[in-house]
Amino acid sequence: MNPTQTVRAVQIRGGESREVEDEVVIEEPLEIRVNGRAFSATMRTPQGDEADRCLCLGLLLAEGVISGFDDVVRVEVRARCRDFNGELTNIADAITLDEPVKGDKWARGIISNSSCGLCGHASVAALCSQVEPLHPPPLDLDLLRSLPSQMRVRQTLFERTGGLHAAAIFSGSGELLACFEDIGRHNATDKAVGFCLQNGALPSRGDDLILLVSGRASFEIVQKALRARVGTVAAVSAASSLAVELASRNGVHLVGFLRERGLTIYSAPTDEHG
Amino acid sequence: MNPTQTVRAVQIRGGESREVEDEVVIEEPLEIRVNGRAFSATMRTPQGDEADRCLCLGLLLAEGVISGFDDVVRVEVRARCRDFNGELTNIADAITLDEPVKGDKWARGIISNSSCGLCGHASVAALCSQVEPLHPPPLDLDLLRSLPSQMRVRQTLFERTGGLHAAAIFSGSGELLACFEDIGRHNATDKAVGFCLQNGALPSRGDDLILLVSGRASFEIVQKALRARVGTVAAVSAASSLAVELASRNGVHLVGFLRERGLTIYSAPTDEHG
Repeated sequence: MNPTQTVRAVQIRGGESREVEDEVVIEEPLEIRVNGRAFSATMRTPQGDEADRCLCLGLLLAEGVISGFDDVVRVEVRARCRDFNGELTNIADAITLDEPVKGDKWARGIISNSSCGLCGHASVAALCSQVEPLHPPPLDLDLLRSLPSQMRVRQTLFERTGGLHAAAIFSGSGELLACFEDIGRHNATDKAVGFCLQNGALPSRGDDLILLVSGRASFEIVQKALRARVGTVAAVSAASSLAVELASRNGVHLVGFLRERGLTIYSAPTDEHG
Repeated sequence: MNPTQTVRAVQIRGGESREVEDEVVIEEPLEIRVNGRAFSATMRTPQGDEADRCLCLGLLLAEGVISGFDDVVRVEVRARCRDFNGELTNIADAITLDEPVKGDKWARGIISNSSCGLCGHASVAALCSQVEPLHPPPLDLDLLRSLPSQMRVRQTLFERTGGLHAAAIFSGSGELLACFEDIGRHNATDKAVGFCLQNGALPSRGDDLILLVSGRASFEIVQKALRARVGTVAAVSAASSLAVELASRNGVHLVGFLRERGLTIYSAPTDEHG
């Protein structure tokens, strides 16, 4: 199974712009069950049943649900199956010798609701139904390319430790409104959004704002932008398949591999239709 | 508040080895509550109450628990306080105008058990009490420095998309036993551990094995190694404060910034005492 998919994108290098077929990594949820009972759901890269089985075993070991392979009878993988509602379902169900898990394990762990068909497109559809599309202004490429260096001078902890992600929110004219570092890129994004929420920059100026993350743009980063009503998401690194889909379907501009010398545009709904 | 701490480490560059005071980023859990009720816990970099307040607001917005700042009366941050049991507690409690959250939000979200004092050291102590220390053989530095290039040739998806993490497990003699890529570094690690669990390489050969991750070594990566009984953890990028503490206290070798030209040793209990 090929864990990448091709998306149409616009690559900018120096002053040149060209349309390309760009390969992005596929991101899809997998629900982990133990004896039919939901334990956790994780966004993962699908690489076939064997990899899903390994992921399920490794996660349950890490969480202390199983103490070894001997506890497991088999792992039933039902990935990309249609369930009885006709929805795509990604499930790995570990059948164990004994019911291994006490109640508090579930209370401590990550509980997921499996009421929706657990596939990426279902997640996107569910989220789309809850939020209004955004209407950001067309992308200003020169301005975008100036942002990473603005963020970099604020990444003082990264300079010292090499161990942090950063997220920044800029106004439409490139003014830095918030910049936070954190060991997790989701946390850095949450901090920057929370800061703008607190001082009123969000949601009032939302559509015009730009979220810049030091790492990759995954489903959850675009989800955070969408909930915060930030119109443009830019990542210094790659974008995932679901990030592209979620951005495209909700009017969010999505830019990847943002450097001074170039960038790749994965979603620019305003520019296409405006 | 300084979000880094200094640890003693051994830096190897070329043939030279020297003891250094190395700055690592602090990693600590923060429990997010809504009106006193636990909603989620996240490992974050502490940067003072203001940053914790922003993180809490941003996370609740992203999860759809609040729809804007107007829903929130105040966020009470009690970070690094001692609770009545004398344990350190990191909590951000959002007090909202109305009880905003229906039951299913909690079922879908991440529920954490707050029965232990929620600070990093409590997490380390809780985990240490559940697992036996490891006894890996002394580090073979030349062998270690050859591993990243072995993993890199297997990172075929990264080559094509630039958007993936990788994790590999090697035998004590440098034989590649498992290598997986995934959009999440935790998933890549779980896949590699699960693979070795399935074919019997774990736990039997555990102490001798080496886990190599393409990114950073955080608390959770060392936790996964410890549960899987893998004696050495090596990261191409930085290590966090809790990762160093957890490794040191459990006999796990921890190496960061692993490149052909050098590496930094954060924990080598066997070499110190053996």
